[in-house]
Amino acid sequence: MLENVNEKCAVVGVFGHKEASKLAYFSLHSLQHRGQEAAGISSADDKKLHTIKKRGLVTRVFDEQKLKTLSGSSAIGHTRYSTAGDDSILDAQPVFARYDLGEMAIVHNGNLTNAKEVRDDLIKKGAIFQSYMDTENLIHLIAKSEKEKLIDRIIDAVQRIEGAFSLVFLSRTKMFAMRDRFGFRPLSLGRLQNGGYIVASETCAFDLVGAEFIRDVEPGELLVFSEGREPKSIKIYEPTPKHCIFEYVYFARPDSHVFGQSVYKARKEMGKELARVKPVEADLVIPVPDGGVPAAIGYSQESGIPYEMGIMRNHYIGRTFIEPTQEMRDLKVKMKLSPMVDLIKGKRVIVIDDSIVRGTTSLRIIKMLKEAGASEVHMRISSPPTTDPCFYGVDTPDKENLIAANMSEDAICEFIQADSLAYIDEAALLRSVGAKDGDEKYCTACFTGKYIV
Amino acid sequence: MLENVNEKCAVVGVFGHKEASKLAYFSLHSLQHRGQEAAGISSADDKKLHTIKKRGLVTRVFDEQKLKTLSGSSAIGHTRYSTAGDDSILDAQPVFARYDLGEMAIVHNGNLTNAKEVRDDLIKKGAIFQSYMDTENLIHLIAKSEKEKLIDRIIDAVQRIEGAFSLVFLSRTKMFAMRDRFGFRPLSLGRLQNGGYIVASETCAFDLVGAEFIRDVEPGELLVFSEGREPKSIKIYEPTPKHCIFEYVYFARPDSHVFGQSVYKARKEMGKELARVKPVEADLVIPVPDGGVPAAIGYSQESGIPYEMGIMRNHYIGRTFIEPTQEMRDLKVKMKLSPMVDLIKGKRVIVIDDSIVRGTTSLRIIKMLKEAGASEVHMRISSPPTTDPCFYGVDTPDKENLIAANMSEDAICEFIQADSLAYIDEAALLRSVGAKDGDEKYCTACFTGKYIV
Amino acid sequence: MLENVNEKCAVVGVFGHKEASKLAYFSLHSLQHRGQEAAGISSADDKKLHTIKKRGLVTRVFDEQKLKTLSGSSAIGHTRYSTAGDDSILDAQPVFARYDLGEMAIVHNGNLTNAKEVRDDLIKKGAIFQSYMDTENLIHLIAKSEKEKLIDRIIDAVQRIEGAFSLVFLSRTKMFAMRDRFGFRPLSLGRLQNGGYIVASETCAFDLVGAEFIRDVEPGELLVFSEGREPKSIKIYEPTPKHCIFEYVYFARPDSHVFGQSVYKARKEMGKELARVKPVEADLVIPVPDGGVPAAIGYSQESGIPYEMGIMRNHYIGRTFIEPTQEMRDLKVKMKLSPMVDLIKGKRVIVIDDSIVRGTTSLRIIKMLKEAGASEVHMRISSPPTTDPCFYGVDTPDKENLIAANMSEDAICEFIQADSLAYIDEAALLRSVGAKDGDEKYCTACFTGKYIV
Amino acid sequence: MLENVNEKCAVVGVFGHKEASKLAYFSLHSLQHRGQEAAGISSADDKKLHTIKKRGLVTRVFDEQKLKTLSGSSAIGHTRYSTAGDDSILDAQPVFARYDLGEMAIVHNGNLTNAKEVRDDLIKKGAIFQSYMDTENLIHLIAKSEKEKLIDRIIDAVQRIEGAFSLVFLSRTKMFAMRDRFGFRPLSLGRLQNGGYIVASETCAFDLVGAEFIRDVEPGELLVFSEGREPKSIKIYEPTPKHCIFEYVYFARPDSHVFGQSVYKARKEMGKELARVKPVEADLVIPVPDGGVPAAIGYSQESGIPYEMGIMRNHYIGRTFIEPTQEMRDLKVKMKLSPMVDLIKGKRVIVIDDSIVRGTTSLRIIKMLKEAGASEVHMRISSPPTTDPCFYGVDTPDKENLIAANMSEDAICEFIQADSLAYIDEAALLRSVGAKDGDEKYCTACFTGKYIV
Repeated sequence: MLENVNEKCAVVGVFGHKEASKLAYFSLHSLQHRGQEAAGISSADDKKLHTIKKRGLVTRVFDEQKLKTLSGSSAIGHTRYSTAGDDSILDAQPVFARYDLGEMAIVHNGNLTNAKEVRDDLIKKGAIFQSYMDTENLIHLIAKSEKEKLIDRIIDAVQRIEGAFSLVFLSRTKMFAMRDRFGFRPLSLGRLQNGGYIVASETCAFDLVGAEFIRDVEPGELLVFSEGREPKSIKIYEPTPKHCIFEYVYFARPDSHVFGQSVYKARKEMGKELARVKPVEADLVIPVPDGGVPAAIGYSQESGIPYEMGIMRNHYIGRTFIEPTQEMRDLKVKMKLSPMVDLIKGKRVIVIDDSIVRGTTSLRIIKMLKEAGASEVHMRISSPPTTDPCFYGVDTPDKENLIAANMSEDAICEFIQADSLAYIDEAALLRSVGAKDGDEKYCTACFTGKYIV
Repeated sequence: MLENVNEKCAVVGVFGHKEASKLAYFSLHSLQHRGQEAAGISSADDKKLHTIKKRGLVTRVFDEQKLKTLSGSSAIGHTRYSTAGDDSILDAQPVFARYDLGEMAIVHNGNLTNAKEVRDDLIKKGAIFQSYMDTENLIHLIAKSEKEKLIDRIIDAVQRIEGAFSLVFLSRTKMFAMRDRFGFRPLSLGRLQNGGYIVASETCAFDLVGAEFIRDVEPGELLVFSEGREPKSIKIYEPTPKHCIFEYVYFARPDSHVFGQSVYKARKEMGKELARVKPVEADLVIPVPDGGVPAAIGYSQESGIPYEMGIMRNHYIGRTFIEPTQEMRDLKVKMKLSPMVDLIKGKRVIVIDDSIVRGTTSLRIIKMLKEAGASEVHMRISSPPTTDPCFYGVDTPDKENLIAANMSEDAICEFIQADSLAYIDEAALLRSVGAKDGDEKYCTACFTGKYIV
Repeated sequence: MLENVNEKCAVVGVFGHKEASKLAYFSLHSLQHRGQEAAGISSADDKKLHTIKKRGLVTRVFDEQKLKTLSGSSAIGHTRYSTAGDDSILDAQPVFARYDLGEMAIVHNGNLTNAKEVRDDLIKKGAIFQSYMDTENLIHLIAKSEKEKLIDRIIDAVQRIEGAFSLVFLSRTKMFAMRDRFGFRPLSLGRLQNGGYIVASETCAFDLVGAEFIRDVEPGELLVFSEGREPKSIKIYEPTPKHCIFEYVYFARPDSHVFGQSVYKARKEMGKELARVKPVEADLVIPVPDGGVPAAIGYSQESGIPYEMGIMRNHYIGRTFIEPTQEMRDLKVKMKLSPMVDLIKGKRVIVIDDSIVRGTTSLRIIKMLKEAGASEVHMRISSPPTTDPCFYGVDTPDKENLIAANMSEDAICEFIQADSLAYIDEAALLRSVGAKDGDEKYCTACFTGKYIV
Repeated sequence: MLENVNEKCAVVGVFGHKEASKLAYFSLHSLQHRGQEAAGISSADDKKLHTIKKRGLVTRVFDEQKLKTLSGSSAIGHTRYSTAGDDSILDAQPVFARYDLGEMAIVHNGNLTNAKEVRDDLIKKGAIFQSYMDTENLIHLIAKSEKEKLIDRIIDAVQRIEGAFSLVFLSRTKMFAMRDRFGFRPLSLGRLQNGGYIVASETCAFDLVGAEFIRDVEPGELLVFSEGREPKSIKIYEPTPKHCIFEYVYFARPDSHVFGQSVYKARKEMGKELARVKPVEADLVIPVPDGGVPAAIGYSQESGIPYEMGIMRNHYIGRTFIEPTQEMRDLKVKMKLSPMVDLIKGKRVIVIDDSIVRGTTSLRIIKMLKEAGASEVHMRISSPPTTDPCFYGVDTPDKENLIAANMSEDAICEFIQADSLAYIDEAALLRSVGAKDGDEKYCTACFTGKYIV
């Protein structure tokens, strides 16, 4: 894809480990693909909460000395994908607050769909908001709840919010992890080798820190972590799963296991489905790296057409602000991707990508392949046409900028200068992730416009 | 002094100028001596407030592009002296909030003496605090006030707080400036050359931006700035002035005019008073630069003993983390100050400093002068012994670390290895600033322990 | 491989283009994989040479403004792989010198095998050396040559040096490109679209800047570029090709074409050869990314065993200085690579890598795969055992640290905890690159110890 | 002065101290006023020389770890004032070279007047020059000398060069310090407390590191430092002193002792001379800080007119790239200097500065004082009119930009808008430094145009 569709953030929580903030740090590093704008960690020791958050990649924000100041045996962390584009420093997480029960810190990903109503209501009652983050709603709701115990207040608070979210709360002595009733975003529970627990947006974090996967946090479930006890499960809502199917298509790391499935396997299946959709004679199947790799492998295995690494991805991308010269066309794509000319020349090529958003990148890739001498280029997309924007925590372009919302497949094919184009349909996508057609436990709104109310 | 007594911050507000944030920037630069830890500006245009705040000197925090994003014809700014020592970014100002009347931003210096009570009360009522700054109290008080109009809410709010403070509030269309009833900290009002107004902690800001001094904001006065009108004055409290006399002794820039007096002139008078206290025969009068310069000039003029620049201040201080070698004694002082050996050798020297806090720096300076060959070193301090910590916005050591709280003058003289030592007393200090003995319009608590309740 | 075997630098030269330094910049960017320590460009305008060189990646060293100061229609560039590890800044290229014919700048990669003799001789004759770079030899030889014309001096100079090198010289009006008689390192000639020529270490540079590949610079050939003329070819030596076969195995970018062959295709062939060497029943073939990808694809195609992306490479590596916790084993590898657990669990896996140097990384990868549940792990290496260090411009460990120089294949297999291990032999390697067994046009010293004298 | 007249560099050498590079570091720090562009140190241990040099202030270039790599008991250092304005890194010192006798490093300040001839001659003989520094001449001359012993080669080399310079050479076991026959630039010898020697451009370096001043290095003298011996003195030339009198006027630190005199005292004497030149009735004498301070004190003492700190220098200058608003006139001066308005208003003021170069800064200062309300401003300059550029190591504007070379004193007075203007003449200047009129041991070329041939 290589285009601007971005997950909005990852969360992590570590409880009951004497190097909690260090584990949070490494976990966040493995979740860096879910947000590169800012990173933050709050820890709790016996006396108080400590917070450090800043712009930059996880490895830049923290050093050994900073991690030392984040003392204590529990810690929560966050990596943030920038939405605002603002130069402001206000919008990094965790959000910290002192309130009548002491101190708390919260991290949160996703989108609260009723954020505005809740906020307006809170503001009417005298609350002030110091940032543009939905997360502030939560600390207000907890602070203003008339319940006495924190756990009851949290229950109060989460019942007031709607949308797609994973939350981790930290108090001086406890940690709470909650997933919305739809389970839009993944959130898993793991056990640390030397005691203690971890929750994280993706299981790849467990692998890095040597934790063992226990299970997903259930949709609508609140987990309470207290010292010396097993995590206590409270069902706030009856689960009505609506897992974001785009996690399988693009967001999650292929080595993660989300919503009970291997991401890599799901992607390969999508490739296999694709091979059945609109077969075409060709010499090679090549992926747009790295997103298209598993589906291209699947396609090749299903079709018998050889898989090749026909496009290379450059690891030294960096940012350049140098204007290209007149003869350097499509520099932006070429800085990242380059074709294996000898392989492609004179060949009929099937190119696999995970999705088409605006269409301009696909166009550039196909032009690049044709300039490299491909005799035919057949584009195959391992998901249905992306026709609708996401309101549950993903940063997608407006409908008017989604090419599939505005053009027929034939028109797109012509626009991107492909010799043929095919997508898989919703049913095939569902099959790829082990669901039946009509199964409603996945949110497919970006392909269907069927939003949950 | 060169020791750790520091003013806690400067504030500035600009209203009715199309380059408001730029004027705030230059004003803050001229107030940099009141806080070097962080700097911030909020501006207001027709639509919304914009805020940038960050660690670092004013010239580092902002660049042309950032100032451009701070659009609008009003702006408030702040430079902060670090109190916490924390690595947190939470405590920079302005503090921004959205609340039921829209958006606001506040800057504040000084100390609210009832901050804890107010905060506890607010927290009890459901408020949350996201930082350790007293300033948050104010935005809560305004947000929670039941009055309908902003001006009434501000009046409500400021009546709830006590202590030493200067405040500047910014809303989308208005600016408010307020000084506590005691007028502890200076705050002056100026007129911009091409229209518009400016308020600032010190008048030196006016000189840099080409503004004309109108008058001080009165103790207990709230100024309201609205477009197209003269600033409106509201007397919230009857003024009961208790100006911080240490502003004259050390804090304010010598080219500023505070509490109706030239700072430079006041310091020179202190030097003259000092010349009368405990006369001593000597060959030279020299200042500890730069703080002691005006008083040393005054001392010389009064005593007839020649003034000399006997100690040089190095302009390339920077920070070094290199350990000195064995033969390099008192490196920390010597990196900053060095004696004019030829001038001092064999001479009886009177050294003028503005104050003695811990005594260790005075000791090092005197040792340095004796090593340079001074036959006698007589220390003269242009203020009374500093015996008590400040609770009104100045960062002083605890009483146990104030040498004058724990030793007699004779003992101090011996400790710092001076041949004689003398201070001026409270009456002389008051005379220096044009006040009579017994005049109560100055706070002299750091010399007398007479705190206002 | 992921271990410390590194090419020592890339060179580029652009002649006859009004944005020469910009083209050099982008070319260097595409050659970044050959050296990440420092980058530099010299340009020549009518009046003088301009040089900028600094530590850091190409995109960091230069910006628009710096490129503007590198004016003129010819430019040479260099990316450097650090050998010294010194904090010195002296060893970046181009090397600039003023001498009796004016000004010159040189870039150079590879190793001069008689550098010490030449230098000692030059020093005996009064020359001084200001760096530890072999390149200085060349400028001295040119300066000291008694020939009158630059071209004759260059010929004089290059006849004095031996070893593996590619050179590009720049004078105020001309550019010269030279390759050693053995043609160890690749160096190709291309034509710019709007006129002018380019030489570069790899053809991938041509693709980025829109240049057309003409041919390789011949071993022993000197190319002279003058305004308004075709490049003039001078045969300094009869070519006796000894191309570094490791360029195919590991160094060159897979999308480059070196020594007349596609690198990608050569790697795939190595994989196919490997499939024939020591067949093993298995469920999957997986590469160590990214180096092992083409060979793994070749292996899969030849063996019929499915290719899978069983190990993921993390794109957000960065550097971390944080110590892992006790439970985090093999962190260094795991920060870069992670296994697809669901894919691997219970499977017999063939892992393809391009080479084994020290063996420790292979060990960690195999342990990681076994922890992920692989029932068997068969290591296959797409080159012969690396038994001997390189003296021709590649930074390899000493013989004592090359595992294959000190252990039998069986012992290595045991050390890395593989269920089986196989390499291809020299003959197969030669076949992969289209050469016959016994063909002597490739240097295989790192596998055979047969060095050229 | 505050204008662009700058000394070109400082040198230092430390011999026979186990922390030689650390002492060089602190010495360079105290000589930072002689060059802020770059800093470098070379040290020698038993085995080899180590060099670190970089752009930036001394405290930025080095840290504890870097100093550790500069091991050995001797070290030489340099701070550089940028002449080229180039972005090149080539021109920092020490210059290091390997040559037939081993390794050497050299630091050098001043200007070689026959640099071009020597270089052209060397180049004709086959030498190459890799920078634009005169220092390269020296290493070539030493390397090419046909003498066998280093000391004889150095003697050979220094006999070939002319101009104003101080040199320090470092070999593996020895250090050499040399001053040109005219002794243009200061260079002093000191004894370290715990053994070992130090040479430095100014004695203020000795004070910081706890060294004792022994004597100046004589003009034309070469000092040889060998382990376990007293420094050996070799008279290369008969001394014909031509000390740069501008060192007294402006360059040297006031706490230094150069050419046998206290700089501070010399400046005070200049002020006293000035008081006698063109007396004027006035209320105050004020310096342009910091350069004018000693002369202003001298003026006040001689005239009896009170000395005042009428202009404040801001310590937080930093660099700003923000454009001022329309009403902010003369921002550049006002960011640095601000007037004590209350002191100046209605007063007749005598302003003392050390020199006038272009005149524009004087104009701005006088305008600032008049805007502050001064009724009269009388400018007094503690040196003669600067009419001629310097060719001996000082960076002065061309003659056409020296106001005194192009205007009469009356015209200058009018240009700078002063009520009166006076300089001291050459005779008075000579008297101030203890010389008689007609004494030829000072170079006064910048005031008289009498250059040494």
